[in-house]
Amino acid sequence: MAPSKSRTAAGGPAPWATDLTSISPNRVLVRGYRLDDLMGRVNFGEATYLLLTGELPTPSVGRLVDAMLVSFIDHGATPPSTLAARNTATTGASIRGAVAAGVLGFGRFHGGDALACRTLLDEGLTLSHEGKTMAAAAKMLVDRLVETKDIPPPGFGHRYHTIDPRATRLLQIAYELESEHSYTQMLRATEHALSQHPDLKDRPLPVNIDGAIAAVCGDLGLPPEVADALLIISRVPGLAAHVLEEQRRESPMRVIEPSKHTYDGPPERRLPERRK
Amino acid sequence: MAPSKSRTAAGGPAPWATDLTSISPNRVLVRGYRLDDLMGRVNFGEATYLLLTGELPTPSVGRLVDAMLVSFIDHGATPPSTLAARNTATTGASIRGAVAAGVLGFGRFHGGDALACRTLLDEGLTLSHEGKTMAAAAKMLVDRLVETKDIPPPGFGHRYHTIDPRATRLLQIAYELESEHSYTQMLRATEHALSQHPDLKDRPLPVNIDGAIAAVCGDLGLPPEVADALLIISRVPGLAAHVLEEQRRESPMRVIEPSKHTYDGPPERRLPERRK
Amino acid sequence: MAPSKSRTAAGGPAPWATDLTSISPNRVLVRGYRLDDLMGRVNFGEATYLLLTGELPTPSVGRLVDAMLVSFIDHGATPPSTLAARNTATTGASIRGAVAAGVLGFGRFHGGDALACRTLLDEGLTLSHEGKTMAAAAKMLVDRLVETKDIPPPGFGHRYHTIDPRATRLLQIAYELESEHSYTQMLRATEHALSQHPDLKDRPLPVNIDGAIAAVCGDLGLPPEVADALLIISRVPGLAAHVLEEQRRESPMRVIEPSKHTYDGPPERRLPERRK
Amino acid sequence: MAPSKSRTAAGGPAPWATDLTSISPNRVLVRGYRLDDLMGRVNFGEATYLLLTGELPTPSVGRLVDAMLVSFIDHGATPPSTLAARNTATTGASIRGAVAAGVLGFGRFHGGDALACRTLLDEGLTLSHEGKTMAAAAKMLVDRLVETKDIPPPGFGHRYHTIDPRATRLLQIAYELESEHSYTQMLRATEHALSQHPDLKDRPLPVNIDGAIAAVCGDLGLPPEVADALLIISRVPGLAAHVLEEQRRESPMRVIEPSKHTYDGPPERRLPERRK
Repeated sequence: MAPSKSRTAAGGPAPWATDLTSISPNRVLVRGYRLDDLMGRVNFGEATYLLLTGELPTPSVGRLVDAMLVSFIDHGATPPSTLAARNTATTGASIRGAVAAGVLGFGRFHGGDALACRTLLDEGLTLSHEGKTMAAAAKMLVDRLVETKDIPPPGFGHRYHTIDPRATRLLQIAYELESEHSYTQMLRATEHALSQHPDLKDRPLPVNIDGAIAAVCGDLGLPPEVADALLIISRVPGLAAHVLEEQRRESPMRVIEPSKHTYDGPPERRLPERRK
Repeated sequence: MAPSKSRTAAGGPAPWATDLTSISPNRVLVRGYRLDDLMGRVNFGEATYLLLTGELPTPSVGRLVDAMLVSFIDHGATPPSTLAARNTATTGASIRGAVAAGVLGFGRFHGGDALACRTLLDEGLTLSHEGKTMAAAAKMLVDRLVETKDIPPPGFGHRYHTIDPRATRLLQIAYELESEHSYTQMLRATEHALSQHPDLKDRPLPVNIDGAIAAVCGDLGLPPEVADALLIISRVPGLAAHVLEEQRRESPMRVIEPSKHTYDGPPERRLPERRK
Repeated sequence: MAPSKSRTAAGGPAPWATDLTSISPNRVLVRGYRLDDLMGRVNFGEATYLLLTGELPTPSVGRLVDAMLVSFIDHGATPPSTLAARNTATTGASIRGAVAAGVLGFGRFHGGDALACRTLLDEGLTLSHEGKTMAAAAKMLVDRLVETKDIPPPGFGHRYHTIDPRATRLLQIAYELESEHSYTQMLRATEHALSQHPDLKDRPLPVNIDGAIAAVCGDLGLPPEVADALLIISRVPGLAAHVLEEQRRESPMRVIEPSKHTYDGPPERRLPERRK
Repeated sequence: MAPSKSRTAAGGPAPWATDLTSISPNRVLVRGYRLDDLMGRVNFGEATYLLLTGELPTPSVGRLVDAMLVSFIDHGATPPSTLAARNTATTGASIRGAVAAGVLGFGRFHGGDALACRTLLDEGLTLSHEGKTMAAAAKMLVDRLVETKDIPPPGFGHRYHTIDPRATRLLQIAYELESEHSYTQMLRATEHALSQHPDLKDRPLPVNIDGAIAAVCGDLGLPPEVADALLIISRVPGLAAHVLEEQRRESPMRVIEPSKHTYDGPPERRLPERRK
């Protein structure tokens, strides 16, 4: 246990400060804005961005962040974080207990892939700042990844999808909002280099949602830990929905066999037309 | 450990179904909508509502749900859930570990008040369905609460605020969107009855945010457990922001003294004009 | 959020006290005993009992508590709490994160059964204090349980075992240590009444480990919440062992199918002779 | 999300195995021993060791492990893990929810110090295997730590204690049980080198409990992750005791100010004589 550096000489606990939210009687300021002003004027994704970064997003950035949050909101019943939440729910635990168990299931290999991909892109960008073209930098990255057998690299390939529809759409939105910058370019260059590597001929490794999120967050200038926090936030509604469904539809203390599940929700349907 | 009712006769685990999200190669359907269609067209609050209830909200309902999510997004550094998250973060735990600890800190008395207020309003509404006026039903409720010393009742009064600005604003938005129905009326009637009770003369107990959320969710027809899930979801960005701030600004293993903290963020500022 | 009753008039936080552990420079007292004196003289189960109850157990009570802690230490790979921990571990989460997820999976129906059985036994004992024989009280309980379809009742029957060997052994140890009192008698009476009920002829419902623990803790005079805490404590080593095994033996992000697992540890072996 | 390597070619989930516990009707084997045989013959610390390592400890090792588990069982009301658990409990959360929040508060800097100290000792031992004396290796370690400003190093010094009584006692027990080997020697050598470094003259940095545990676990041949798991397990009773005390003695939703607490338990008392 490291001696705390925050204790004052006299041994009393040190004063400290927060720049997030100010509470005074009948007034709540979030990053300087009255919370009651934000309500109804700013949506939940924008308020989240404000809290995490200190500023409201521009409308374009707000839409991109919202798309990112929506992209990760749920991925069915088999991700291990979802199974952790459901296994907790089946014991009769509270919603918050089961959701917390699910949140704990975003480990290094789940969700953490966005962070790892960001690191990879940073390496590539460092090479390109040293004078390499993006393509050359990406080829160097991929050669090394193949050599160290780190295939698939974080951000590429998917166990279910050959083309991850969420990644495609997120990058398209980033493009439409003119928010594609060097991270996205390096992501594309790496995807291309993977597709050209002779050892990976029969193993297509297109960008997945973790990779797309890594690039979009990089291009937005979000620090990696903020991007990580956004991912955790974005999956909580999905975890909660699975927990509620477990409570509503299943008997307590059941043995949850992932492979035995089917989908019995509505078949594919079109969005209502008036949606933007 | 109760014998599971979900085991088949042969002893193998029973098949089960989910109606939330369907995953097939290159296609993710959330409640029947392609996730890549939802991205960019539906915001995070609307997608959350879709997952939890099965249907997209109307634009009015979407705005109300968003306002509710924003209202609860953070309440400064002293709620015990936030302190649990910060105490966990100061040990060097991961973001998800510290956020999960915060989520666990929405117990019966914190967040749970919205649920308890909903139960109270349900009791009042039952009385009114039995022929009492709202006012008479509310008076009966309050008389009983005073008698059983359950003062303040859940949903009324606040330890910092004499008037909770979040509650005022949320009810105003509900009014503007014509979403005030019997729950909100019963909430108002109960607030009035509290203000009239002779024993509570010197103790104003106006509606707080838990009460406003209870009424709004009731009027939206959301089951109590869905309302509960929304509250948990809504506070996660605040928890994450405190965890990130703890990591960024403070030394590890500090002793966190809630009363020693100050706010050093931006002073009150106006929302950018172009916001709706 | 209820206004805190612990704030002093002046608004500052109230002083508070703990009677568990005193820390002063170079001296740690647990319940008045020097921790360094306890080390080597008191085992972990006894120290646990000391912390939870305030006093060291007598040698008999210590042995009984130890037997109880050992009885619950693990129950294989399929309890949902264990699956929650393993699903969390497979994502690359930390040991503490995965263990915490497992702890959250002791909900109302898992572990909580010991509490529920305690309540049942309390009801029976109340009846017997009102002049009924144990047998008559147990028959009344069982008749009601059958009527309300609460079969199996908490503490009786098991999904795998027709006779729970842990329960048999724990009750035997309690008998040998002369620690069988009214709770254990009521447990036996209830087991007998279940076996005699005409509707349960083909459904043997012998005491399970939750029932045995409920009775033993009742006879030891442990409050229900202390008994509950003991159960949580007792399973943590098992959770940790599963988490370590998941890390050691399995690939990350695997889909964990409970029914697909086998046991490949040592075959049945005898305890070394010199063990007491 | 990395593609799982555990899926079979056909896409079905792969079979898997556990060597911990075998469950068959009416028989539970833990590492090959019948659980009902272990009950009453093996104490909780020994059963924990069996689960984590695969074998029962010798009596000496069992006593050492028990001493280690007891040494870490509680450290008063101010460690952040304990404050996380208490802050969670004050919201009305369940015992298991509050305990889980506490478990999450063993981060890199809390508990994790034992792991970090183990790494340090491993570095020293590597140097000594390369032909350096322990003293020379320890001096090299300390010179580097001072240079990189990693003072105090993990395992040395304490914010409250100038001499950590738990460390002294644990190392004494290890000595008595003839279990002091190279890790303990390197720990001592490092403590000595720290005391001799000219920059640290006024800053005594004796071995703390994390350091003692690191050395003892190293000398027992326990892998670092097993040592880490033991630490988590050992603190759970303390967390549970604080949660129960919070529920029993304090009002809900209080603001927990660590510096405002006092100890009102029994004054120092002697262990009953008959204890070994």
